[in-house]
Amino acid sequence: MSEKPVCLILGAGAGIGGHVGKKFANEGYHTVLVRRSDEGGLNRLIADIEAAGGTASGRLLNAIEDNAIEDLIADVENNEGPIEVVLFNLGAQFGDRTLEDTSYKIFELGWRMTSFALFRVAKTLAPIMQARGGGKILVTSATSAMRGNAGQHAHAAAIGGRRMLCQSLNAELSIKGIHICHIYIDAPIEAPDTLGRLLGDELYQKLLDEKANGKDGMVIPEKVAETYYHIAHQHRSAWTSEVDIRPFSEQPWWNN
Amino acid sequence: MSEKPVCLILGAGAGIGGHVGKKFANEGYHTVLVRRSDEGGLNRLIADIEAAGGTASGRLLNAIEDNAIEDLIADVENNEGPIEVVLFNLGAQFGDRTLEDTSYKIFELGWRMTSFALFRVAKTLAPIMQARGGGKILVTSATSAMRGNAGQHAHAAAIGGRRMLCQSLNAELSIKGIHICHIYIDAPIEAPDTLGRLLGDELYQKLLDEKANGKDGMVIPEKVAETYYHIAHQHRSAWTSEVDIRPFSEQPWWNN
Amino acid sequence: MSEKPVCLILGAGAGIGGHVGKKFANEGYHTVLVRRSDEGGLNRLIADIEAAGGTASGRLLNAIEDNAIEDLIADVENNEGPIEVVLFNLGAQFGDRTLEDTSYKIFELGWRMTSFALFRVAKTLAPIMQARGGGKILVTSATSAMRGNAGQHAHAAAIGGRRMLCQSLNAELSIKGIHICHIYIDAPIEAPDTLGRLLGDELYQKLLDEKANGKDGMVIPEKVAETYYHIAHQHRSAWTSEVDIRPFSEQPWWNN
Amino acid sequence: MSEKPVCLILGAGAGIGGHVGKKFANEGYHTVLVRRSDEGGLNRLIADIEAAGGTASGRLLNAIEDNAIEDLIADVENNEGPIEVVLFNLGAQFGDRTLEDTSYKIFELGWRMTSFALFRVAKTLAPIMQARGGGKILVTSATSAMRGNAGQHAHAAAIGGRRMLCQSLNAELSIKGIHICHIYIDAPIEAPDTLGRLLGDELYQKLLDEKANGKDGMVIPEKVAETYYHIAHQHRSAWTSEVDIRPFSEQPWWNN
Repeated sequence: MSEKPVCLILGAGAGIGGHVGKKFANEGYHTVLVRRSDEGGLNRLIADIEAAGGTASGRLLNAIEDNAIEDLIADVENNEGPIEVVLFNLGAQFGDRTLEDTSYKIFELGWRMTSFALFRVAKTLAPIMQARGGGKILVTSATSAMRGNAGQHAHAAAIGGRRMLCQSLNAELSIKGIHICHIYIDAPIEAPDTLGRLLGDELYQKLLDEKANGKDGMVIPEKVAETYYHIAHQHRSAWTSEVDIRPFSEQPWWNN
Repeated sequence: MSEKPVCLILGAGAGIGGHVGKKFANEGYHTVLVRRSDEGGLNRLIADIEAAGGTASGRLLNAIEDNAIEDLIADVENNEGPIEVVLFNLGAQFGDRTLEDTSYKIFELGWRMTSFALFRVAKTLAPIMQARGGGKILVTSATSAMRGNAGQHAHAAAIGGRRMLCQSLNAELSIKGIHICHIYIDAPIEAPDTLGRLLGDELYQKLLDEKANGKDGMVIPEKVAETYYHIAHQHRSAWTSEVDIRPFSEQPWWNN
Repeated sequence: MSEKPVCLILGAGAGIGGHVGKKFANEGYHTVLVRRSDEGGLNRLIADIEAAGGTASGRLLNAIEDNAIEDLIADVENNEGPIEVVLFNLGAQFGDRTLEDTSYKIFELGWRMTSFALFRVAKTLAPIMQARGGGKILVTSATSAMRGNAGQHAHAAAIGGRRMLCQSLNAELSIKGIHICHIYIDAPIEAPDTLGRLLGDELYQKLLDEKANGKDGMVIPEKVAETYYHIAHQHRSAWTSEVDIRPFSEQPWWNN
Repeated sequence: MSEKPVCLILGAGAGIGGHVGKKFANEGYHTVLVRRSDEGGLNRLIADIEAAGGTASGRLLNAIEDNAIEDLIADVENNEGPIEVVLFNLGAQFGDRTLEDTSYKIFELGWRMTSFALFRVAKTLAPIMQARGGGKILVTSATSAMRGNAGQHAHAAAIGGRRMLCQSLNAELSIKGIHICHIYIDAPIEAPDTLGRLLGDELYQKLLDEKANGKDGMVIPEKVAETYYHIAHQHRSAWTSEVDIRPFSEQPWWNN
């Protein structure tokens, strides 16, 4: 058992998940990093955190499997320590797909990975947090939670529903000391594991050349992690329930 | 085969579904009424429509079953006529339930009945409509599509996602002549089959006494059917994608 | 005094204002058409209405002048008949202007023509309508009421404020029988007096060639007038407070 | 001239304005505090800041007067130093007033103090900031910017318009390095100068007894100042344009 407060990251890749993990570890949390695959990447994250003087552990886990989330939470609570902060960082961006190219399977998968998985986290963890007097549930989201768009049938339905779930959870749990914040990223992220994989190496590198590398035109995970940390430490007289994030050079979704 | 254009109603109870069916039948549509149960109620609706000089047929069907929606659409297209208008009138209001009282099963059921079922309708019907140059998809929705609320975990996640799905469908299909409109009812409805069943006879009667019976303080299905019909017949240079509905005596959800 | 109910149109040019006037006149209203200038255009509108068997009168009036609105309402109420419907159709679209090119004068003018002018209408007319048991206030608005955009500093501030005013008015007046509806047009309109003047003849003609003339890619005022009329005649158990309008071929403001 | 960066606070009372001033002063800014009246209160704020080792200066000024804002900015830029951050903290909450009790004068005053005053700040300061490569404009706002409510005719129209102005400014200025953030407080604030004056001593004390004093049920200005500071220091790859703030124990405006 760690004596530190625990920060659990669901979806701890090389983008926002990993960097939020590092930030919390630097600030004194024991961080539990969970991702579906890539044990090498997971171990590198843990090594980075430990090299910086922090503590972390990791799990490989497919969140949509029955009992995966429930068992994980029990395991962490029993063996690592009380979860004070959970970052729900699972997304379901399948890229733009026409209605024809969006199968029932993908539509369901999107829902299982985002809306239903968050519901499972909340069902399992909220009563535990509540019994302790509080906790933090941070949810990384995206523009499709705010409005549907062409090609986003599965994604928008999944994360748009999740946004409403966040509000429902907040309406019940805020008074019980549980701070829920929906943080939506309204721009491409420097995230090789997700955007990189979606675009492929060549397109991703082109995007980096055009917008990153000192231009700060893509969201830099290390930088946005500061805002995640800030939100998780707002005084309870002044909580924020929704935050939008984009680089200075990107127009918001409501512009064009 | 009917020579009339077909209006298909999914969720044709004694409330909005049935009354929209009557309205379209009165205006010259052949109406196909679909509901999960209550063959007697279904037959009464058909008899009413025929007594008024219209034509209608009916089906009992559980929409969440595999192939139920897909087979229905094929059946109607093959045996009754081309579907010009579909009213998606399935909801998933389970009443207010705390997080503790909202089971995984209910959460999934909500999604299957609203978001996924609409997706299945669109996947199946949109290509057919598109090949004919257009069609109308009207979706009855509720306040929980606009914001989550205490006790609405399953409902808000389900229909909030469905609202984003409507916007995604619209972004792809509008240009192809398919008009999608999200009509959300922001007040109790005079609907014995849904609100009546949810509240129970006594509470529902009390609500009627307080707000209905000449006071017009609940949404009257026969009246709101006029707006459904109007939306379905807007000229394509002036389409509406979202409409809110409430009685004059109700404050909107954004007030209190 | 007319024996018909009166429909007062503020901003009765050759676009939406004039066509809503024609529609209401055709349906049995005495229509009072008010615009700032162009007596010839005003007289042609009246002649059109009378040729179709309706009745109408007109006024030239600069709404932002002190007492102009107040005196107009008194005049119409005293000399033409009780105002049952008012269409507030004044806008303040100055075209896209950078912050540098947006003067204090324009910023104030935008507010006076839209937000403050509607407030003056409501202050003057709502007590009269209320004493009669009700009335209708329809407000034509635009996309900038929903979100600010580059170049829209004056316009968005003016009509964004007006939208919130509509909601405040609704919160107080709906229960008193006054139906307020904010109808926002999210696309270019076939309106020679407004869009035509803003763009100039050449650009406007180019737009018409590209999008109008059978393509239905601009909002056709005659067609959208049907929706204005429908809203004004919704049963009080099923009122709508906001409607968006765009052609089938235009993406909504929330897409891009 | 200060060698520190300057933080200019418009509306520096004993609530959010004063506490944001203290926070920025503590963090190394020279803070210029501006308010309409109460020289004693202003001097106490400055003394507090200086006692904590910071530097501050003050001005008494009626922002709605011609040239007041323009001259102030020139004065600060010329005599105190380059303004890096401006907090626009002027509001126009007149309490709930029926339409009848909302005069034209109040309606206009609301607009002058919020929407027009911010426009004047942006017209004057944005070109200066832009020439320096950037700056920060933080705007304190309230729930009425999100939706109109009964009694909020003047307030909602004023600050709803201001919110759209923030978005228009952002659409033009963000790319030029100017970060605009609309921070809306969705709950009562422990602010004797504003809420205290609005409610009167007795009611305000009652509210404090019920919600403050360790209960954290009102927004504590000192605490929310942390979020203002955080927003002003977000990396430009990860800016936030809107933030909501309320205590854990308050339901958001979209709930009831």
